[in-house]
Amino acid sequence: MKILIINPNSTNSMTQKIGLAAKKVAGTSTKIIATNPTTTPKSIEGYYDEALSLQGLLKIIKTQKNYDAIIIACFDDTGLDAARCLTTAPVIGIGEAAFHYAAMIANKFSVVTTLARSVPAIEHNLARYGLAARCAKVHSSEVPVLDLEKKGAKGKQAQNKISKTIEAAKKQDKAEAIVLGCAGMADLANSLTKKHKLPVLDGVACAVALAQSMVKLKLETSKLGGYAFPRDK
Amino acid sequence: MKILIINPNSTNSMTQKIGLAAKKVAGTSTKIIATNPTTTPKSIEGYYDEALSLQGLLKIIKTQKNYDAIIIACFDDTGLDAARCLTTAPVIGIGEAAFHYAAMIANKFSVVTTLARSVPAIEHNLARYGLAARCAKVHSSEVPVLDLEKKGAKGKQAQNKISKTIEAAKKQDKAEAIVLGCAGMADLANSLTKKHKLPVLDGVACAVALAQSMVKLKLETSKLGGYAFPRDK
Amino acid sequence: MKILIINPNSTNSMTQKIGLAAKKVAGTSTKIIATNPTTTPKSIEGYYDEALSLQGLLKIIKTQKNYDAIIIACFDDTGLDAARCLTTAPVIGIGEAAFHYAAMIANKFSVVTTLARSVPAIEHNLARYGLAARCAKVHSSEVPVLDLEKKGAKGKQAQNKISKTIEAAKKQDKAEAIVLGCAGMADLANSLTKKHKLPVLDGVACAVALAQSMVKLKLETSKLGGYAFPRDK
Amino acid sequence: MKILIINPNSTNSMTQKIGLAAKKVAGTSTKIIATNPTTTPKSIEGYYDEALSLQGLLKIIKTQKNYDAIIIACFDDTGLDAARCLTTAPVIGIGEAAFHYAAMIANKFSVVTTLARSVPAIEHNLARYGLAARCAKVHSSEVPVLDLEKKGAKGKQAQNKISKTIEAAKKQDKAEAIVLGCAGMADLANSLTKKHKLPVLDGVACAVALAQSMVKLKLETSKLGGYAFPRDK
Amino acid sequence: MKILIINPNSTNSMTQKIGLAAKKVAGTSTKIIATNPTTTPKSIEGYYDEALSLQGLLKIIKTQKNYDAIIIACFDDTGLDAARCLTTAPVIGIGEAAFHYAAMIANKFSVVTTLARSVPAIEHNLARYGLAARCAKVHSSEVPVLDLEKKGAKGKQAQNKISKTIEAAKKQDKAEAIVLGCAGMADLANSLTKKHKLPVLDGVACAVALAQSMVKLKLETSKLGGYAFPRDK
Amino acid sequence: MKILIINPNSTNSMTQKIGLAAKKVAGTSTKIIATNPTTTPKSIEGYYDEALSLQGLLKIIKTQKNYDAIIIACFDDTGLDAARCLTTAPVIGIGEAAFHYAAMIANKFSVVTTLARSVPAIEHNLARYGLAARCAKVHSSEVPVLDLEKKGAKGKQAQNKISKTIEAAKKQDKAEAIVLGCAGMADLANSLTKKHKLPVLDGVACAVALAQSMVKLKLETSKLGGYAFPRDK
Repeated sequence: MKILIINPNSTNSMTQKIGLAAKKVAGTSTKIIATNPTTTPKSIEGYYDEALSLQGLLKIIKTQKNYDAIIIACFDDTGLDAARCLTTAPVIGIGEAAFHYAAMIANKFSVVTTLARSVPAIEHNLARYGLAARCAKVHSSEVPVLDLEKKGAKGKQAQNKISKTIEAAKKQDKAEAIVLGCAGMADLANSLTKKHKLPVLDGVACAVALAQSMVKLKLETSKLGGYAFPRDK
Repeated sequence: MKILIINPNSTNSMTQKIGLAAKKVAGTSTKIIATNPTTTPKSIEGYYDEALSLQGLLKIIKTQKNYDAIIIACFDDTGLDAARCLTTAPVIGIGEAAFHYAAMIANKFSVVTTLARSVPAIEHNLARYGLAARCAKVHSSEVPVLDLEKKGAKGKQAQNKISKTIEAAKKQDKAEAIVLGCAGMADLANSLTKKHKLPVLDGVACAVALAQSMVKLKLETSKLGGYAFPRDK
Repeated sequence: MKILIINPNSTNSMTQKIGLAAKKVAGTSTKIIATNPTTTPKSIEGYYDEALSLQGLLKIIKTQKNYDAIIIACFDDTGLDAARCLTTAPVIGIGEAAFHYAAMIANKFSVVTTLARSVPAIEHNLARYGLAARCAKVHSSEVPVLDLEKKGAKGKQAQNKISKTIEAAKKQDKAEAIVLGCAGMADLANSLTKKHKLPVLDGVACAVALAQSMVKLKLETSKLGGYAFPRDK
Repeated sequence: MKILIINPNSTNSMTQKIGLAAKKVAGTSTKIIATNPTTTPKSIEGYYDEALSLQGLLKIIKTQKNYDAIIIACFDDTGLDAARCLTTAPVIGIGEAAFHYAAMIANKFSVVTTLARSVPAIEHNLARYGLAARCAKVHSSEVPVLDLEKKGAKGKQAQNKISKTIEAAKKQDKAEAIVLGCAGMADLANSLTKKHKLPVLDGVACAVALAQSMVKLKLETSKLGGYAFPRDK
Repeated sequence: MKILIINPNSTNSMTQKIGLAAKKVAGTSTKIIATNPTTTPKSIEGYYDEALSLQGLLKIIKTQKNYDAIIIACFDDTGLDAARCLTTAPVIGIGEAAFHYAAMIANKFSVVTTLARSVPAIEHNLARYGLAARCAKVHSSEVPVLDLEKKGAKGKQAQNKISKTIEAAKKQDKAEAIVLGCAGMADLANSLTKKHKLPVLDGVACAVALAQSMVKLKLETSKLGGYAFPRDK
Repeated sequence: MKILIINPNSTNSMTQKIGLAAKKVAGTSTKIIATNPTTTPKSIEGYYDEALSLQGLLKIIKTQKNYDAIIIACFDDTGLDAARCLTTAPVIGIGEAAFHYAAMIANKFSVVTTLARSVPAIEHNLARYGLAARCAKVHSSEVPVLDLEKKGAKGKQAQNKISKTIEAAKKQDKAEAIVLGCAGMADLANSLTKKHKLPVLDGVACAVALAQSMVKLKLETSKLGGYAFPRDK
């Protein structure tokens, strides 16, 4: 099967990282195509960046053919509803994927994301999906998205901030699991799970596993109401 | 004061109608600039059209100067959160405006919109604004947006369908007021209020009145969290 | 237009302050009548004071004629539903007005009110209006209502307590705006907005602007359900 | 023990009926004092009547001494919060009492009340108590309160309307129990339980049983927050 | 009347304590039968213990005859819904009983229970009953259930932890009342009420008073939907 | 990988059907072990049957070794929380699995289950999972569970009733997908999807796909709070 993973921002190093994380989870018969638009913001931090990413994101979906499922690899689930209008294939957001899994291994989870400005959009999504009551709190670690791409001291510092925020969430929130709130954190989930001794979920891996399962189930996006095909696809 | 009203779709006749409706409400010292992008869909019916309208919509905001408030004249409140990131001026969606006013003159209101495919986005907004509990039901009248622009029999037929849906909502929902769920219905509110003997609210007029009031109050969009300026405005 | 502002408590100095705050916002063609019953408690701090204020409040509405809108100038929105039964004119509570505006300039707001005993009534209103999910927290500053009327050290001390509570709310709640939870704080909003660098809303000004806008819109209180005229007005 | 039951309206025949219903439930050692103010509306149908009843209601509580519990015998639970500020004794509303019991014998219940205008206040209470999710629907039978006091054909007709509304609620709502939404229906619960073969609850009886139980438990109204004594009781 | 109180765990000393607490509240004409299964866990701390207690609990109900009401004396309300399917008599959980009473004497209450592992089940119940919005927080005191059965220093230490947790809840939560979250705390409510100067509720006493009141009201568990008799009782 | 599927009732023909449905979805390297306790009710219709199934269900989990994931194949998700306490492996309920998938291909879904008595338990689960807002309505088709096991006219009649209920749900609820509310309907999903032209989800297939995906992700049930291992596993 072929899974199309779209990083809606235009930072190719992040797309690479996402692609690697995806391939680790993907079955041998799954082909992962990780791509990104070139006209969108360098990173998606909040509502405005989200909006500017939609056109490029949707254009990729309209151009690509022969995919079996689509993953939107931004934790804000940028353009998820719009993308679903374009196809009968399953379309999964990485935020959504992580939330649903977390809700099945923990009574309550907390989210650790990048900047404070991204928190309201994530809270908004949780409410929309119906899972707000399952999330104890959305924390910001005050790490800008692109710092996660940096090597050396800067990158290390970013990881430390995330680790400290997880520790705080664990103590204060009664959270039984942590969801990492940025595609750029995809490579950190395993080590953080071991370090903090609770499940730490990365949305990219979650979305790949979920998408594969939906293709096997032959589940299709409903065309009956809000996701009906647009007049002129 | 100067109020910039953006119809996010590219149907200029609808922009004209919106501009007229706005001017009827605007004070003598208020200048109304009604405009629309030229690159966006002809009408906005659901999530996909919404997404394709954002770039054009935001570009207008970035280009225009010297406005005191912005109104987004699509009932889905297309791009509302993103637009708020670009300015300290108040930014009001016509859906939002109508919902807030309806909540202050009625215990419960119902919405009458165009097509079934637009219903989930409106329900989603109501939940996000916190006003879902105040809305009895979102009805679709099965009138495509552009039929509202037609004259003669077709236009008359559209109006009849809307009127019948209002009648049904009044009987079934215990709704005490009706919100018209499309900018293209802006010219119908007054006659429908008289005909059905309950308040029928048009979002365009509501948003103009609300925007004027916010300018007078010197209320500014908060820059503290989700609406902080983007890195590069 | 003529707006009738009723301070439901019997402290005339507060009525004066409210009237002044209202006039600052009112348009040149708007006549503000600020009044108060003489038989009601000196201040409204909680459920009991509220209840004792209703009869005097409603009597003023029944006696007065020729108003275009009514404002209830107590942050508990004392008697709001009952008042709406008496008239087709818009009736606005100052708490309600501030909540609705705050919800359009901020993702989340917090309330800073007077005493702990007033908090449950405010929380109750937020739930009833449907806006509880938009309010991060209702704080009490432990300032009795009438201390806000005092000059000199006592008044200064009250203002300091309010300012400290705002600072705490800003840090702890992720609030993007603050709503001042007492009509007696009407004169503080502007300076606190500047000091704390986030929107600080005063309900009196908000209600005046909102009422003016509703009169222009010719919006009337629905007479279809819960606000139907009583048997014998 | 002595239970003070206050019918907040001024129709003494209803107070008599309420007193009788109360005595049927009361233990032999319980003294029931059923009373009503003389200055309040003849019946309480909606927000306005409620507001006009508060002063008379609270005056009775302040005048009476030596009661062990207070019952407010109007289904709107008129003045419940204010009354609780005046005493450490338990204060129970008949609506509240019926809702809490219904929630312990049925997964979902429906309410059958008098007029449509009373529905929003009841829905509002259900939300405030936290029990809205347990109520399938609040129905109006379109029986004015005082018709329940009439004998002969008019009274019979009222009872028929209530019975038909119960039948409809049973079929449409998946309600497992019915709460009668007016103190004036206190004498109908038993026969309707038999006729419709599901629990039909009368708030007056429920409140008496609940109040007795709270006195035995020595439960007192908390004086810590919203129900603290007013400055000058 | 005869009330059957079932402690679903197999620790007889706890059953004795529960029986004593029940008899203190019961009327002179009420016969209390306190019993426990012998095959169930020694204490119920979380979901698993709950599940293992159901069969023994339900067997007692099926064996016993001639009871007028049933009380399930575990704060998790273990098996409450299942037990209701077996009888038309009222079935009351001690958690449920305390929550409903607390909601009528306080605007908000907090729960103080034993271990962190028991918190999610209690939160789950609060949501199911509809009363989650009335509960400020569920605290764990980190006292294992069976420590409450110990005398001497260990027992004293347990009581101190509970008292400290109440103090913290009072300060942090704006709770106006405290619900003790374990049947084994039944003997502590009175002294803690005095010490902390706010209502502290014990579910055992609450359930006995509530059950007695329901028997007097002749309220029966509905047999219309979810509590219909099983195929083969 | 090895997936243990437990049908909590003791009807082996249903276990067979479930096993077959599971194998259709399972990958070639997945071993499906479908089993059932022998001491539990013949079918699970509501709270009481659920309770009687727990002990047998949990005993299987404690006896079995070497599984990688567990599926509870009853739409009520019988014993889900308790089972999670026994293992770090993922434990998935078929109801839960179907709800989560439905929420990712449709804005709103409806459930079609067997008997009215099973509806409250399903509604209760939806609320607990946080997905109640995503479900338009839970319908009963009035088909007893075991009728689904019958061949010939009786079985055909059962299928017709289910099909008619789906048709009604589609028309009345604005549901964009249907979830089949019984493990015994596992073989009907595909044909009903085609017939009604909207996604019809079977929980057994959903749970298998989900469990496989979680094993690949190495997701483990959190041991930090409510799912901590019991004292004596």
